Amino acid sequence: MPSDSRPVVVQKYGGSSVADAEMIKTIARKICDRAETDVSIVVVVSAMGDSTDELLSLADAVSGDHAPSARELDTLLSTGELVTSTLMAMAITAAGHPSVSLSGQQAGISTDMTHGSARISNIRTDRLRRELDKGHVCVVAGFQGLSDNEDVTTLGRGGSDTTAVALGVALQADICEIYTDVDGIYTTDPRLVPTARKLTEIGYDEMLEMASLGAKMNPRSIELAAVYDVPILVASTFEDIPGTLIHGGTQMMEVRRAVTGVAVDRDVAKITVRAVEDRPGVVGQIFGPLAKEGVSVDVIVQNASLEGLTDVTFTVSRGDYERALEISKTTCADIAQDVVGNTGLAKMSIVGTGMQNGPGYAATMFAALSKTGVNIEMITTSEIRITCVINADSIKKAANALHDAFELDSAGD
Amino acid sequence: MPSDSRPVVVQKYGGSSVADAEMIKTIARKICDRAETDVSIVVVVSAMGDSTDELLSLADAVSGDHAPSARELDTLLSTGELVTSTLMAMAITAAGHPSVSLSGQQAGISTDMTHGSARISNIRTDRLRRELDKGHVCVVAGFQGLSDNEDVTTLGRGGSDTTAVALGVALQADICEIYTDVDGIYTTDPRLVPTARKLTEIGYDEMLEMASLGAKMNPRSIELAAVYDVPILVASTFEDIPGTLIHGGTQMMEVRRAVTGVAVDRDVAKITVRAVEDRPGVVGQIFGPLAKEGVSVDVIVQNASLEGLTDVTFTVSRGDYERALEISKTTCADIAQDVVGNTGLAKMSIVGTGMQNGPGYAATMFAALSKTGVNIEMITTSEIRITCVINADSIKKAANALHDAFELDSAGD
Repeated sequence: MPSDSRPVVVQKYGGSSVADAEMIKTIARKICDRAETDVSIVVVVSAMGDSTDELLSLADAVSGDHAPSARELDTLLSTGELVTSTLMAMAITAAGHPSVSLSGQQAGISTDMTHGSARISNIRTDRLRRELDKGHVCVVAGFQGLSDNEDVTTLGRGGSDTTAVALGVALQADICEIYTDVDGIYTTDPRLVPTARKLTEIGYDEMLEMASLGAKMNPRSIELAAVYDVPILVASTFEDIPGTLIHGGTQMMEVRRAVTGVAVDRDVAKITVRAVEDRPGVVGQIFGPLAKEGVSVDVIVQNASLEGLTDVTFTVSRGDYERALEISKTTCADIAQDVVGNTGLAKMSIVGTGMQNGPGYAATMFAALSKTGVNIEMITTSEIRITCVINADSIKKAANALHDAFELDSAGD
Repeated sequence: MPSDSRPVVVQKYGGSSVADAEMIKTIARKICDRAETDVSIVVVVSAMGDSTDELLSLADAVSGDHAPSARELDTLLSTGELVTSTLMAMAITAAGHPSVSLSGQQAGISTDMTHGSARISNIRTDRLRRELDKGHVCVVAGFQGLSDNEDVTTLGRGGSDTTAVALGVALQADICEIYTDVDGIYTTDPRLVPTARKLTEIGYDEMLEMASLGAKMNPRSIELAAVYDVPILVASTFEDIPGTLIHGGTQMMEVRRAVTGVAVDRDVAKITVRAVEDRPGVVGQIFGPLAKEGVSVDVIVQNASLEGLTDVTFTVSRGDYERALEISKTTCADIAQDVVGNTGLAKMSIVGTGMQNGPGYAATMFAALSKTGVNIEMITTSEIRITCVINADSIKKAANALHDAFELDSAGD
C-alpha cells in the first residue's frame, strides 16, 4: 500500500530523448516543474542515444567469432541505463528538486534468469517508497533487473517501457507517461501515409495488436498495463502537444469506428518447408527444435495435403532468419523435399475492437490490396485484427490503400 | 579458507592497458596462457582509457554550477569498470578459457559509506570461490564496492589497486600482480633523471613512502599488502621484461644501500597563516575546520614564536588548494594577520630503510640541493624518509642532484 498520500506518476524517456547533456537538462527542468504539482514522480530512462550500439560493437570487437555470453552482454548493456539515470538525477537536483538514481536492482526489480529477454517476477518497492516519502524524484535505470542468482538481467527490446509500466503497477500509479520522439499513436505510419491521423485515445487490446505489429511500443508493457489497468500516455518529449492515451475505459470517439489503425511490420522473414509428409507429429518435428533454440515463430500456414504431402510456411523476425533456416534444414532433411525462405516481406494489419463479430472487413481489406496490385502471401487473423503478409516493396501503396479504404484520415464521429 | 587447492593469483590491469578492444584481446590471450599453469586467476580491471574523464565531463555538463552528488558520481563512474570487466570476460572466453565478470558487489566487496573515497570493510568471497572452483577466470570490476545501505561506492584514486590487493588478501593469494604502462618501480622518475634504474625488489615500507610521494601506486594498497604480507609484482602489461617485486622478506641487493630511491610529488600547494597568536588551541582552530571539510593536510611547519605571534605553513594537494585557502581565510579572520598560499611547489624525498638511525643523510641531501641552487621551503622526515618542499621549477635539477649524490644509478652490491 502507498505510504505516501500523493499520487504517483511514472514517466519514461527513451534513448533519443536523452541523447545528450542538453536534452537531459531540458527534461530535468520539466520534471522539476511537474514535481511542484504535489505528485510523487518516478522517472525511467533508457540508455543515451546510440550508446547501446557502441557497447554492442565493443562486445563484438573483443569476442571475434565467439558469440559473447548473454550474461556478460546484460551487465555490459545495463551500464548504459545506469549512466543516464545518474546524469538525470544530477540534472534534476541541479535544476532544484532533490533526486536520486536507482539501478534496476535498487528499485527492487527481480526477474527470471533469461538473459537478454528476462521477465520481471517481482518488484519490492520499499526503497522506492522510502525515497519518494523523502520527496525525492526517483530516476530508475530502465531495461534491467536482477535474477535470483544475483546477476544483472535485461528485459529485451523496449525493456524500459516494461520497467515503467511494471513500476506503475507496483506503485499503483495514476498514470504511466511514455515520452518519445513521436508525439502519439497514429492510425498508421505517417512516413508511409501522409494523411495518417494521431489518435486521441486507444484501447489496450487495440494498442496491443498495433504494438505487436510494428508501432513503437513494447507489447509486453501494454499487456501489463491492461491487466492492472494503468493508463499509458504516449507523448512527445520536447513538443508540448497532446499525445495518445492508452486505456481500458470506454472510448469516446474511435469506438464508433470499426477499424482503428493500420499496423506495418517490416521485420518479417518467411520460411517454407516444401513437400513435407502430412502425418501426425510432423509439425511438432518442425517447430520443436525452433522453440528449443529460442526462435519465435509468428504466422504459420499449412496448405491442404496433396497426395500425402503438404507445404508448411511460417514467418520469423529477420534477426532469427538465418538461424531458423539452418535449424529447419537440419530438422527437415529426412521428412521434406527442401526448405526455402526469403526476407523481403512485411505484415500489414488492420486493427480495431469494432471489427469483432463484424463481417466484411477482411473482404474490404483484400479488395483494397488487390485493386492496387498487392499480392497477399499469407493471411492470419485474431478477434480484432486481420493481417496480410505481403512483399516489402508494396508497403507504401498497401498502407495508403488500406488507410483510404477504411477512411482513417477523418475522425470517426 | 580456500576450498580450491590451486594457488590464487590476482592480476590488475590499469586503464591505459585496457584502452581499446585490441589491448583487451591481447591481455585476454596472456591470461588464457597463464590459466593453463594450474592457478586460479582473479583479474581486476580499471575503466578503459579516458572513459572516466568522459563520464566526469557529462556529469559536469548536466550539473552546471551545482556540484554533482558524490553518491550519483559513484554509480556513474562505477559503470566504466563494469564495461571493462564484461568485455574482458568475453575476450577471455573467446580466447578459450571460461570466464565470468563480477561487479564489486558480486565480488562481495563491502565498504563504508564515504562516497568518492570509500574504504573496504569486508569481502565475502563465497561467490568468487564458487566461480574459481568451476575453473572460471573471474574478472572483477575494480574501484568499486557496495555500502551497507546498498549504494555503489568508489574507492578513490588508484582504487583498482586497492581492490586487487584486498582480493589478494581475502583469497590468500600467492601474489598480486599489478600490470601497468610502466615496467616497474624506479630509483626515481626516469623522465627527470635519465640514469634512473629499475629496482628488482623493494620493501613494503619503502614502497609505501615512495607511493605516498608520487610513485604510480596507491599507498593504501601497499599498506594493506604489508599488513597481510601479500607480495606485489609491478610489471609492464605488454612488454615481457622483469618488473619490481614489493615484498616484506629480506631484500637481497638494495638493502645494502641506505637510500633506495628519490620520490617526486608534483601535487603540492602551500598555505601560510601569517602572524597567528601563539597560544594553546590555536593550531586546532586552524586545522579542525579543514579536517571537517575532508581536506587532507600533509606537511605542517610552525616557526618559532616572535612577540607572541607565529607563522603556520602547511601543504595540501592542488585539488584541495582553493577550498583549503577559502576555509582557512574564514577560520583565521580573527586570529591571524592574513592567509597566503601558492601552488607551484613539489616534494622531493629520499627513501630507504637503511637510513634508519644512520646519520648524515639529511646533511648530504641538503648539501646536494644547495650546490645546484635549489631553495628548500619546508622539511619533514620519517624513520625512512627525508622530504624537502621545493619550487616546482627546480624538480629536474633537484632529482638529478639527489640521484647522483646517493649514487642510485649503479646497483649497490
